[in-house]
Amino acid sequence: MMMHLSKNRFFDSDPAQHRIALELYSEIAALPLICPHGHVDPRLFAEETATFGTPAELLLIPDHYIFRMLYSQGIALEALGVPRIDGGPVETDHRKIWQIFAENFYLFRGTPSGVWLAHELYDVFDVREKLNGDAAQAIYDQIEAKLAEPKFRPRALFESFNIEVLCTTDAATDTLLHHQKIKESGWNGVIRPTFRPDAVVNINTLGWKDNIDALSDASGISVDSYVSFIQALEQRRAFFKQMGATSTDHAAVSAYTAELPPAEAEAIFQRALNGKATVDDARRFTAHMMMESARMSIDDGLVMQFHVGSVRDYNTYIFERFGANMGADIPERSEFTHNLRPLLNKYGNDTRLTLIVFTLDESTYARELAPLAGHFPAMRLGPAWWFHDSINGMTRYRDRVMETAGLYNTVGFNDDTRAFPSIPARHDLARRVDANWLAGLVVRGVIDREDASDMAKDCAYRLAKSAYKLGE
Amino acid sequence: MMMHLSKNRFFDSDPAQHRIALELYSEIAALPLICPHGHVDPRLFAEETATFGTPAELLLIPDHYIFRMLYSQGIALEALGVPRIDGGPVETDHRKIWQIFAENFYLFRGTPSGVWLAHELYDVFDVREKLNGDAAQAIYDQIEAKLAEPKFRPRALFESFNIEVLCTTDAATDTLLHHQKIKESGWNGVIRPTFRPDAVVNINTLGWKDNIDALSDASGISVDSYVSFIQALEQRRAFFKQMGATSTDHAAVSAYTAELPPAEAEAIFQRALNGKATVDDARRFTAHMMMESARMSIDDGLVMQFHVGSVRDYNTYIFERFGANMGADIPERSEFTHNLRPLLNKYGNDTRLTLIVFTLDESTYARELAPLAGHFPAMRLGPAWWFHDSINGMTRYRDRVMETAGLYNTVGFNDDTRAFPSIPARHDLARRVDANWLAGLVVRGVIDREDASDMAKDCAYRLAKSAYKLGE
Amino acid sequence: MMMHLSKNRFFDSDPAQHRIALELYSEIAALPLICPHGHVDPRLFAEETATFGTPAELLLIPDHYIFRMLYSQGIALEALGVPRIDGGPVETDHRKIWQIFAENFYLFRGTPSGVWLAHELYDVFDVREKLNGDAAQAIYDQIEAKLAEPKFRPRALFESFNIEVLCTTDAATDTLLHHQKIKESGWNGVIRPTFRPDAVVNINTLGWKDNIDALSDASGISVDSYVSFIQALEQRRAFFKQMGATSTDHAAVSAYTAELPPAEAEAIFQRALNGKATVDDARRFTAHMMMESARMSIDDGLVMQFHVGSVRDYNTYIFERFGANMGADIPERSEFTHNLRPLLNKYGNDTRLTLIVFTLDESTYARELAPLAGHFPAMRLGPAWWFHDSINGMTRYRDRVMETAGLYNTVGFNDDTRAFPSIPARHDLARRVDANWLAGLVVRGVIDREDASDMAKDCAYRLAKSAYKLGE
Repeated sequence: MMMHLSKNRFFDSDPAQHRIALELYSEIAALPLICPHGHVDPRLFAEETATFGTPAELLLIPDHYIFRMLYSQGIALEALGVPRIDGGPVETDHRKIWQIFAENFYLFRGTPSGVWLAHELYDVFDVREKLNGDAAQAIYDQIEAKLAEPKFRPRALFESFNIEVLCTTDAATDTLLHHQKIKESGWNGVIRPTFRPDAVVNINTLGWKDNIDALSDASGISVDSYVSFIQALEQRRAFFKQMGATSTDHAAVSAYTAELPPAEAEAIFQRALNGKATVDDARRFTAHMMMESARMSIDDGLVMQFHVGSVRDYNTYIFERFGANMGADIPERSEFTHNLRPLLNKYGNDTRLTLIVFTLDESTYARELAPLAGHFPAMRLGPAWWFHDSINGMTRYRDRVMETAGLYNTVGFNDDTRAFPSIPARHDLARRVDANWLAGLVVRGVIDREDASDMAKDCAYRLAKSAYKLGE
Repeated sequence: MMMHLSKNRFFDSDPAQHRIALELYSEIAALPLICPHGHVDPRLFAEETATFGTPAELLLIPDHYIFRMLYSQGIALEALGVPRIDGGPVETDHRKIWQIFAENFYLFRGTPSGVWLAHELYDVFDVREKLNGDAAQAIYDQIEAKLAEPKFRPRALFESFNIEVLCTTDAATDTLLHHQKIKESGWNGVIRPTFRPDAVVNINTLGWKDNIDALSDASGISVDSYVSFIQALEQRRAFFKQMGATSTDHAAVSAYTAELPPAEAEAIFQRALNGKATVDDARRFTAHMMMESARMSIDDGLVMQFHVGSVRDYNTYIFERFGANMGADIPERSEFTHNLRPLLNKYGNDTRLTLIVFTLDESTYARELAPLAGHFPAMRLGPAWWFHDSINGMTRYRDRVMETAGLYNTVGFNDDTRAFPSIPARHDLARRVDANWLAGLVVRGVIDREDASDMAKDCAYRLAKSAYKLGE
Repeated sequence: MMMHLSKNRFFDSDPAQHRIALELYSEIAALPLICPHGHVDPRLFAEETATFGTPAELLLIPDHYIFRMLYSQGIALEALGVPRIDGGPVETDHRKIWQIFAENFYLFRGTPSGVWLAHELYDVFDVREKLNGDAAQAIYDQIEAKLAEPKFRPRALFESFNIEVLCTTDAATDTLLHHQKIKESGWNGVIRPTFRPDAVVNINTLGWKDNIDALSDASGISVDSYVSFIQALEQRRAFFKQMGATSTDHAAVSAYTAELPPAEAEAIFQRALNGKATVDDARRFTAHMMMESARMSIDDGLVMQFHVGSVRDYNTYIFERFGANMGADIPERSEFTHNLRPLLNKYGNDTRLTLIVFTLDESTYARELAPLAGHFPAMRLGPAWWFHDSINGMTRYRDRVMETAGLYNTVGFNDDTRAFPSIPARHDLARRVDANWLAGLVVRGVIDREDASDMAKDCAYRLAKSAYKLGE
């Protein structure tokens, strides 16, 4: 069976809206990709000859968006070749793994993973058959052959994907060796690190004490007190900035922010060093460090991202057997109005700060986040995130955010992906959905055609570049 | 005035989508009805000669979906013939009741009850006049005449409605006499019981002690301890299963689950027997019994349904005067991520369990339930429930659930009704809304036409049948 | 560049729906405006020769919907001429202020403020150029010239806007002098006061003790006890009613209602008088006063409005520098099911009460408010409020409320505005959105064309007039 990839996909079928959506999309489809936030491994670009491995290694094994759906239907992760923490046996025949994937590809009907994969197979690997059990091995052959070509190496794809800048996400303790190698290699691709201090800031992180030791090593500052901890963070931020970083990233279950008196911050830090910090200590210290991070951002100009609401490693069985980031992170209800108030009251009126907030709780879009972003000079709203990075999710985001926050308190699209070859599909989907949204405003007379063209470029390119200071 | 019942109702008017929606609907419109969950009285089918009574008794007096709307506009339930608990006087002239209903039928404009009733009047009773004060008595005459015909008896309608299987909902203490009679009558209609133990599991139920006595009687096990309580439940489940049940049903205000140590379960149970259980005892015992029910389901294979979020008997005046299920149940905010974690961590990875979760809080669809159902092998998501069992409600459900959970972690439609003659209207509406949803995906290039046909059959027939094990 | 104001704006572009939407809109476009709730200053109508000031004073400086968006992009309120509490310097050159506004008018693309302003400029002031930096001063000239004409005085606009009745919102302590002057002036315009006792009911209001003194003065009752407080409120309600009021208005962060024993109400009131009331006292007293207000409404027939969920004066910097109502009010999550239960159980079955509830938390529409309004005779649901008073916001409201509550448990539109000249634009937008909503129901066969016409008039005119008793 032939795979269907409509040239006009994701546009409303109403002829008037469809026509304008297509026009707007045509104006932005070829713009370079700005990738201000994501999780691509910089190692891929450190060596010119790096490759992606087998089709299963490229598309399935490392992508929890994919294997969690197969798992939900009773397929064991071992059968999909997902490595176990204890090194126990998992399937190693990648053709077998691929066969299971293909036979169950119907599970992705109507999902973003489904349409990204269709785009990727069609556009990147020239696949024309629909992926199913019958076609599985022939498609495997085809992708395997492509991956052997030099033009399918990471750097070559980076260039053919027309990526202007790609930001990675890196631990505060990371030495950024791969970024250094990329710089020194003379390659033109722009790969910037992002400073993510969660593993040293959240004192209840598994292995936190080791992370602090690593922070001492990386910074050259012996971190034995809250004061030296702050100094080390500032040192690392300066280093990241020097290595090209323009932003930081912070994740927390709750959006809670609150400043601690210095003595209390120090006391909690000491308890943490002694392994005696409580759950409440951790909660309050993270809240305090959000305040501190905002202060540092005002000082050094790094844009501050805040990702809120994911309960990580929810499924203990999966976590203990396969580790973190295995598709078992589940959102919880979030609250921003009261939780962000301390931070916004102290720093939100300061135009030197850019705080970009992401939510997994859509009920906060129109109720809390759009009113906040539509008032505070320092606050911007990040795009529809994770489970909501989808056609309907983006549409709901536009529907609920734009009327109150306005487009210019948002920051365009980011792909937030580990799956490098899916980047064009993700940006293309976003550009189509945005073009369709704007066309809907035009045909209903909410904006005029001229404004729509301008806004389409803002959505696809300019907002991300300016909000993340990537033109600097 | 003529009643309007468009052949193409509920489809988008965009010609491209409309055409495909109609095609898809045509493919599924005549499929048999699978009714895996509902509240039809099995007594209706126990005797071949059973009838429905007057038009008011058929359509209004027993249906709290209908009379709560009339009540909301100041019409007393007594005037509608709703029986009082104390046996006090209520209107007995069913033509008068019908007249009030007809004069106020405009209140149902744009509501699911309104469109179900229109379908039912038009298709089942051949009514062609619009229901209002002028037409009231003539329509009453027409329905009354039909109801006197043998082909309008419950069994005859069951057959003409093309119902493949109808599941009732029955107390754990029910002797299933009517189900027994149906079996013995030689009639071919498939009516299956469903095991609903709420009245013995929730120790703060009014009359709980009597229910426990009834459980002792029904099971033949003297329930005087937690251990014997569990034994009695297991006995009843085995009996229900033998009588054709394939599922259980559990309702709770909160989704809270948590296992108690055996000694604590026993202690709470003893306090309950002695009338000394606290509110917190009840909350924890219900949470524990959800765990136990999941364990039992793994043992005996009964599918487990969990309906969460309704504050029952909210209006004390109505409850005291008319009793339970009188349209005065109001949803509250729900939380699933943390509440289901104990159960899902213990049993959610077990493919022998099917846990179908229903919510009245739509904010949990995309935030909590779709991510959970899209990960755990044991979990499925029930269809849009109660107030959300409507055109917009189903559309929101598809919009918010499908992209993350995928269609195959959901379980198709169920009508959940006490109003037997509304069953075809409810399934027809669901099939139309699903056909329209799928047509929307096709015209926007999200799925192809072939997949849409397959998915339409899944939505209308196959998912319910397989999730509830009704083909076995 | 020419400004674009489509005659058919806000209608779906699907030709079938568009045609019916336009028909329905044409049937209601010229109906008189019913304005049952808003914040227009009655002073504007007290003197025949009152004027609006400069274009900046008319459209920007007093309208926090506008300047909060400019502020969110880093423009200081001082630069916009917003007066400081301390009388410190702010921009006084209104042409400069206007220039900033015009240069940043693109920020309002796709927002309700943007489309209201476009309508207002085009229809009220005959502006044909798009507002931007280039056109700023010419448009200023044009508006300034219009404002100098007698037909642009408030009373003249009131008449040309075809306002049938305009309700203001007035403190319980207000002497209603301006309303008195209007009455005595012989002018035909109907301006009714609304009784808003928040400043004396919420005992933690800044300056509460002064407000109580003012209440004593206004009522002629020495308010030194809870009993005399209630008497004074009843006196003021009687006075407001005599002055034409048909409703009261109550705002609270939470919807909490609960009756206090008289002795406890008195004790809290005494603590408040002595400056010793706690936060919890304030919370419980407000909850109690909601009960009392419902009781009074049953006695005197005043319709009771309840606006829930806004955290006022969220941004301390703005509050301290510019005062209240400066665009820094942020919604929080709301809960109605449990909070309203005491009030609804005591008074909700009483058909003499009309309680109109407003929410800023859309997740409560389908989950809590529609089920409550669809059951209790006394309860009605107010229209989409504040941030949700927008094209998408109203559409979501219709989508989520109507199927359960039905149209007839809602109360039509209210503009809730301080910006008098925006009133026609706001009503026009609402009428267009409603016409489009109804047309959508018609083309999908949910309602028939005849019902749609009837419902359109209900939405645009009749529901507001009857719910607020404005025909009496």
